[in-house]
Amino acid sequence: MAVIGGGQLARMMAEPAAALGIPLRLLAEAPGVSAAQVVPDHVVGDYTDLATLQDVTAGCAVVTFDHEHVPTDHLHALEDSLAVRPGPEALVHAQDKGVMRARLASLGVPCPRNAIVSSVEDVVDFGLPCVLKTTRGGYDGKGVWFVSGPEDCADAFASGSEILAEERVDFRRELSALVARSPSGQVAVWPVVASTQRDGICHEVIAPAPDLDPDLAVEAQQIAMRIAGELGVTGVLAVELFETRDGRVLVNELAMRPHNTGHWTQDGAVTSQFENHLRAVLDLPLGAPDARTRWTVMVNILGGPRQTGHLYDGYPHALARDPRLRVHLYGKELRPGRKVGHVNAYGDDLEDCLERARHAAAWFAGDLGEDSA
Amino acid sequence: MAVIGGGQLARMMAEPAAALGIPLRLLAEAPGVSAAQVVPDHVVGDYTDLATLQDVTAGCAVVTFDHEHVPTDHLHALEDSLAVRPGPEALVHAQDKGVMRARLASLGVPCPRNAIVSSVEDVVDFGLPCVLKTTRGGYDGKGVWFVSGPEDCADAFASGSEILAEERVDFRRELSALVARSPSGQVAVWPVVASTQRDGICHEVIAPAPDLDPDLAVEAQQIAMRIAGELGVTGVLAVELFETRDGRVLVNELAMRPHNTGHWTQDGAVTSQFENHLRAVLDLPLGAPDARTRWTVMVNILGGPRQTGHLYDGYPHALARDPRLRVHLYGKELRPGRKVGHVNAYGDDLEDCLERARHAAAWFAGDLGEDSA
Repeated sequence: MAVIGGGQLARMMAEPAAALGIPLRLLAEAPGVSAAQVVPDHVVGDYTDLATLQDVTAGCAVVTFDHEHVPTDHLHALEDSLAVRPGPEALVHAQDKGVMRARLASLGVPCPRNAIVSSVEDVVDFGLPCVLKTTRGGYDGKGVWFVSGPEDCADAFASGSEILAEERVDFRRELSALVARSPSGQVAVWPVVASTQRDGICHEVIAPAPDLDPDLAVEAQQIAMRIAGELGVTGVLAVELFETRDGRVLVNELAMRPHNTGHWTQDGAVTSQFENHLRAVLDLPLGAPDARTRWTVMVNILGGPRQTGHLYDGYPHALARDPRLRVHLYGKELRPGRKVGHVNAYGDDLEDCLERARHAAAWFAGDLGEDSA
Repeated sequence: MAVIGGGQLARMMAEPAAALGIPLRLLAEAPGVSAAQVVPDHVVGDYTDLATLQDVTAGCAVVTFDHEHVPTDHLHALEDSLAVRPGPEALVHAQDKGVMRARLASLGVPCPRNAIVSSVEDVVDFGLPCVLKTTRGGYDGKGVWFVSGPEDCADAFASGSEILAEERVDFRRELSALVARSPSGQVAVWPVVASTQRDGICHEVIAPAPDLDPDLAVEAQQIAMRIAGELGVTGVLAVELFETRDGRVLVNELAMRPHNTGHWTQDGAVTSQFENHLRAVLDLPLGAPDARTRWTVMVNILGGPRQTGHLYDGYPHALARDPRLRVHLYGKELRPGRKVGHVNAYGDDLEDCLERARHAAAWFAGDLGEDSA
């Protein structure tokens, strides 16, 4: 099978692919990117070029993706020669927030109030304060503006993109419901997790979400399964949700690929999101998604301004302090704010898992001095 | 770091290496061998050629091994430019059974009665029946003869190798004690397992060994830790033992690399033998070796005479029947009797784990018909 995109998600697909004996062919953006370091059969090229995509996928039965940025027309063209999973009809809902909101509304799935806006007047009519988002291309906090008054809207409209306005939801916290769905229609749904963002980037995940009303957990899972089925998603679908202070869940974002809120599954679930993504896109029976342990905490390692030296310099302390720590590094060069890895800590005591994972991630990121060890 | 040998052990080292962000450089015996499929930075060449070894290890800080067949002189030569782990002084005990027996005797480690023999008369003097083994080069039942009378000894002496005679131990079962040891002297020891051989090849492992006397388990672990320390082993050491019917343990074989009796750790232990091997040879703190679950059963998948078609054809049934099954395939072509993969099944009920793992392995090996599903 072919994988388009050489980021850490493709890199982490390569681990279960090796275990399952599934040969991968990779299209990498540049030599030496994260996944190209661990997938021998790779080509360096441009995923917006159809000929390159056709070249990489030649002879493969299935193609899947590290990201959602391949142009829809190219996906349709690829469908002439192999299975594209997820397919373009599904993927457009993860590429275009306007299409996604319209479709979820037609399905009756609870969402924040929203409208396409094309001027400051539209935003005023919609109601301020609100959130403005580009319908396409935003990620990790990019392409998102929290606006309080008309004077805050200039950047969004200067972007030249189509803009979606959404109400600012008074949320208790953010949840994520992760499912894998195969073309045959089998679905595996992992426990609902709580995620914390920092500067618009997923920072910390607790699995399962602590003190979550069981009915609300089931509702979140049902929403994710319903979206996966109605949209014909194949592979992993992440549904990010707001849990409102008045006890509802509202869909925030969709991603149709393994997702940062599912990294805990590598060490905390019977089957990881990366393995079930592969199994789903190959239409193989899915693995059990249940948790192997009471709690798993995932914390991202972000390149920090105080980071000096090599990321591996963090190993002696971090591994000696916590022999049960699970470390995942992406082979990326350090840049401030860049995701370069994550840690998982699992166990029976949530506070202990939080302390271990937070300490290790901060240590790797250079945010702790020797004296805080 | 460099890894010499492109078999499945190197392939399975590549998975934690990717997770830990450790770049591997591989010397593979031939294009497309098991580990070469998943390690981009590989060279095809002959591990008995010193220049090739020097070329592959150039610029690396550490070299380790998929097998124990690199000539001792070459290992000494490599030590001039990088750390060789395990080192030649340790490795010779896994390469030469005569050296191993002499050293264990000097340490007072319990072994079967043994002697170097150079003629049939020596064997008669030693006592028949007994086992004859080549001191070097034997594995998976090769280079081993079970002899009952003088007339059975011809093949062994015709081999041209030095021959070790050992008593035939009246054993209840075979055990394996697995440890990882770092150059700094840290040791991690996994629970002692029971292994079953079939035609001289490891077939099935139960972790931990059922109904093992706790004192005997501790003794087996202490023997493994003592050997690792006294011999200066770095990386994983597998000590295969006989549990005698009168309640003793005797050392059978040593291996200084990840071992078939440790494959259960991939899914059944906090830290796998492959990850701790890497951590040990890099002198990083070792991960916790304890079991994550009550029982884990590993069964090898061997190419069978009735095998037809592609190994992956086994997936739909095996994965649908058991969503908790863990499958590890090596990317090898099928040949009768060849190890091409293994499965792990874990859980609280040993009989259930045994049934699941045995069924899946037999299914992949083509030993079951559709009607036995």
